[in-house]
Amino acid sequence: MIESVVFNDAGLVPAIAQDEKTGQVLMVAWMNEEALRETIASGRAVYFSRSRQRLWRKGEESGHVQRVKELRLDCDGDVLLLSVEQVGGIACHTGRQHCFFRKLDEQGEWQDCEPVIKSPDDIYNKPKSGKE
Amino acid sequence: MIESVVFNDAGLVPAIAQDEKTGQVLMVAWMNEEALRETIASGRAVYFSRSRQRLWRKGEESGHVQRVKELRLDCDGDVLLLSVEQVGGIACHTGRQHCFFRKLDEQGEWQDCEPVIKSPDDIYNKPKSGKE
Repeated sequence: MIESVVFNDAGLVPAIAQDEKTGQVLMVAWMNEEALRETIASGRAVYFSRSRQRLWRKGEESGHVQRVKELRLDCDGDVLLLSVEQVGGIACHTGRQHCFFRKLDEQGEWQDCEPVIKSPDDIYNKPKSGKE
Repeated sequence: MIESVVFNDAGLVPAIAQDEKTGQVLMVAWMNEEALRETIASGRAVYFSRSRQRLWRKGEESGHVQRVKELRLDCDGDVLLLSVEQVGGIACHTGRQHCFFRKLDEQGEWQDCEPVIKSPDDIYNKPKSGKE
């Protein structure tokens, strides 16, 4: 399995998370070999955070876990596509359903076109509960 | 517009092409600033080929042009999402509808699960016609 995946010079491969029901592209993140192995073993999306330089178990802080329903690899072996169930209906750290909320308008400007479902303050600074 | 896009150290940004009607993720390629500007100006997907180190006007050989219906940018500004009409119904150089034709099975093996619609020989070695 892993030998078919082409990791880049940094040992990473981009992974697209797509909503299994709506087909919405939710987000793109990166995986190293360890993240990919854990994703497959656990059935939950695990990425490698380039900013934090460590495994990022999606939802570990927010609770917005992604349950992986299907995993695909592209023709060149250098992009992964995950079909996921997005727990909580929020994939983006901005509190939106997905990360692609800026749309280019006819004037050549990016326009925000998706609502914030939940404030990031409420997502990330909420009191710790038994679930976290 | 362009100043909101975060290009990597190689001056590139990944671009996902998604079928405007079905939501199928067709392929992922890369754009440099010139490719992005030409994509917007022409309404056709133009990528930067890393292997050939030059602009790649999708469909220039195959005829499988992508007409861009919408262009989106993600929260971090480092991934583009194109909603496209895929001319010819084939996005992949293998002659398949899309590039994500390998699915991980329960034994941990990648299984080809999409038909080849047209042989690559027929796509790329066809006699030159007036259309090319």
